[in-house]
Amino acid sequence: MSGGPTVQITDSMDTVNEVNDENVEDIVDPWTVQSSNAKGVDYDKLIKRFGSSKIDESLLNRFEKIAASRGQKVHPFIKRGLFFSHRDLDHILSLHEQGKHFYLYTGRGPSSAAMHMGHLIPFMTTRYLQKLFDVPVVIQLTDDEKFLWKDLQLEECFGLSRENTKDIIACGFDPEKTFIFSDLSYIGSCKEFYWNMKRIEKLVTFNQVKGIFGFGDSDCIGKISFPAIQAAPSFSSSFPHIFNGRTNIPCLIPCAIDQDPYFRMTRDVAPRLHLSKPALMHSVFFPALQGAQTKMSASDPTSSVFLTDTLAQIKKKINKYAFSGGRDTIEEHRKYGGDCEVDVSFQYLQFFLDDDDELEQIRKDYSSGALLTGELKQKLIKILQELVGHHQAERAKVTEEVINYFWRTDKYACSEKYPPLPKGSDKKKKKKGTPKMKEATDEIGNLKVTRETT
Amino acid sequence: MSGGPTVQITDSMDTVNEVNDENVEDIVDPWTVQSSNAKGVDYDKLIKRFGSSKIDESLLNRFEKIAASRGQKVHPFIKRGLFFSHRDLDHILSLHEQGKHFYLYTGRGPSSAAMHMGHLIPFMTTRYLQKLFDVPVVIQLTDDEKFLWKDLQLEECFGLSRENTKDIIACGFDPEKTFIFSDLSYIGSCKEFYWNMKRIEKLVTFNQVKGIFGFGDSDCIGKISFPAIQAAPSFSSSFPHIFNGRTNIPCLIPCAIDQDPYFRMTRDVAPRLHLSKPALMHSVFFPALQGAQTKMSASDPTSSVFLTDTLAQIKKKINKYAFSGGRDTIEEHRKYGGDCEVDVSFQYLQFFLDDDDELEQIRKDYSSGALLTGELKQKLIKILQELVGHHQAERAKVTEEVINYFWRTDKYACSEKYPPLPKGSDKKKKKKGTPKMKEATDEIGNLKVTRETT
Repeated sequence: MSGGPTVQITDSMDTVNEVNDENVEDIVDPWTVQSSNAKGVDYDKLIKRFGSSKIDESLLNRFEKIAASRGQKVHPFIKRGLFFSHRDLDHILSLHEQGKHFYLYTGRGPSSAAMHMGHLIPFMTTRYLQKLFDVPVVIQLTDDEKFLWKDLQLEECFGLSRENTKDIIACGFDPEKTFIFSDLSYIGSCKEFYWNMKRIEKLVTFNQVKGIFGFGDSDCIGKISFPAIQAAPSFSSSFPHIFNGRTNIPCLIPCAIDQDPYFRMTRDVAPRLHLSKPALMHSVFFPALQGAQTKMSASDPTSSVFLTDTLAQIKKKINKYAFSGGRDTIEEHRKYGGDCEVDVSFQYLQFFLDDDDELEQIRKDYSSGALLTGELKQKLIKILQELVGHHQAERAKVTEEVINYFWRTDKYACSEKYPPLPKGSDKKKKKKGTPKMKEATDEIGNLKVTRETT
Repeated sequence: MSGGPTVQITDSMDTVNEVNDENVEDIVDPWTVQSSNAKGVDYDKLIKRFGSSKIDESLLNRFEKIAASRGQKVHPFIKRGLFFSHRDLDHILSLHEQGKHFYLYTGRGPSSAAMHMGHLIPFMTTRYLQKLFDVPVVIQLTDDEKFLWKDLQLEECFGLSRENTKDIIACGFDPEKTFIFSDLSYIGSCKEFYWNMKRIEKLVTFNQVKGIFGFGDSDCIGKISFPAIQAAPSFSSSFPHIFNGRTNIPCLIPCAIDQDPYFRMTRDVAPRLHLSKPALMHSVFFPALQGAQTKMSASDPTSSVFLTDTLAQIKKKINKYAFSGGRDTIEEHRKYGGDCEVDVSFQYLQFFLDDDDELEQIRKDYSSGALLTGELKQKLIKILQELVGHHQAERAKVTEEVINYFWRTDKYACSEKYPPLPKGSDKKKKKKGTPKMKEATDEIGNLKVTRETT
């Protein structure tokens, strides 16, 4: 990508407050995440720069209530602020409280068969939200994007979509309510999706994508028009087989904050198409083993724990590469304590250790020096080994038939016609027949959805 | 279109010789055709500027031989030089002479339900070539383009595609060998077409489309990537239902010269995709009633004879608007004679009067002054009334069922399954079963197709 260094935004987009800071600004766009600070990107600054809103105490309280009413807990990613920013999430919660419908949309650019832990965050979150709200999920695999950006053939990119689908399914999505699609497969089979692409393409100029994504004159025309393809799933009319032609079912997109530029553009376009703006939940970046300054790279095997790593590899990687906030000697560590804010192992535990009390105890003990780096890493290794082991076992169950079922468009209209899925992948009681989607917003409701967060 | 005034071309494209002329250059691109000369565009200069080749005596002789061998004549459009320029047409004739296969591709942007006489030229020519060579024809209706360029909704553009299909069918295409498709319908149903779009989009930069089409930074991203969509039908793999997955069946495109920029771009891309460059036959512009300086406009009813005009309207339009090369008074006309080179009625006769001897006699008589403008116009009116009357009768026979048949993708594999077409629209004996397309070029043959015209 020949992109410029920072995400800019045109005046017509969602409000963006320019921050004139003496410090060098973090770089955050869909292709680059870089910070000069060992603690990583300054997320509070990013909220100001992107013009989004903080997920605050009052929103968390509403989540707590909803979760409690369904006998569930708030997911640690949300409770601990790893999803820290949003657009219109409050409105989506209101829709739920009023018994109205919405759907979830997330995705992935399948650039490599080897996904890492960080790639799981949006899928684990979306899976949790699907269970909490009992709503349909659409998952886009932008294999056409990867073809345009990488030195790969279409056939290879399409093959990666099939592979990555297995990892996504292994996260436990409801097969009856989840549509996973590859652009290279779905767009050539769904007129309505293509029509929405054209509607969006007509409303976005080169100037705008230049400003938002840093595209230049020497970029290929495929890249330049790609943002419309990532925008299209934000509108329910792109999925006639799920929503039966309803064009205005609101959408919530859980994603890492680097994907926000696509959806700022989408939110700018939506009202001009008389459609709801998608709501968003933004996560922080999952840190690389080497530290929080950079995002992990799927092409650098030492930068992260991969979902294909063996238990021994996980142990070795954490012990060898996980950046430590500990002191140089045991004596110093006991005396001064470690720094949880830069310690990568502790940060990983924040993601994957469910027990709040235990996490807090570790934080205290590591900070005081009572817990040594080796001991901290030992706790993390055990959790990661369990998590990756479980993932690999679930992934091994995903047959071609199961992939096909998640990719199907016809199951929504007549799910009872198709053979039952292998055991374990359809624990939920299946709904028979066409799910009746209730229009979630009327004329006035829609205005509420599309109002600006300020 | 915010396009620049002249067609430019990058160095990597087919050779274009810059003509540094003292005169103001004609403007010729897909959106603008303008000449300051009453005789219209200087086509010899255009051949030099675009780097194409003249359809010369020797090519015409080869056409004569092929036509004679099939008991046919060379079409007046070709014989009279109304198709004046080409790229690799000689190679296509060689393929035919060697018994190898190719296909024809032409199209239309359906911006209006009212098509005029000029719009018929490529279709009448393609229909003639289909009969002469007995080859498949694909006809693209770029309704997505019209949506992007005009103040129209997708539904309207799609409706215009259906309407225009009737006029195209009325030209007499073979229903068993002709696939008419709307982008808004076909692209969302054919993965292979979408894959070719992406392959082309990856190889063309914004700089290139800026140079070729004059796009600017304030153009929408849909326009910027559109050229890939008009390029895709040049490759047989975009039509798996016709060519059964054969990727290298050569293509011949009859079109007006203003469409050449799209196919210069396509020819630049083809070898990098290991595909045959499409061959081209370029026609002159059908002159507006007001004179040859401008192309006709479907939005100006007085600029042309429309296919929906009544016999009385045709008479009135020719008498009232057709620019005359005659003198101011009968006396002067008898004395000095008229000017056939600027007389629009005579130019129309060159298109539509089949009898060569009669046309030559009219030329002589009008030039000498023996034939008056009113008499010349009378001859033209009669011919146009017959032609339009016949077209309207043929168009009236085109039912929704017939449109659907031409749009079908499945008829090529199992045509015997479908109900017979209404009488008159399928005079040819139908071939049963899947047409077996022979690969027209081997590795070396392909090199021949893709060689440069110099």
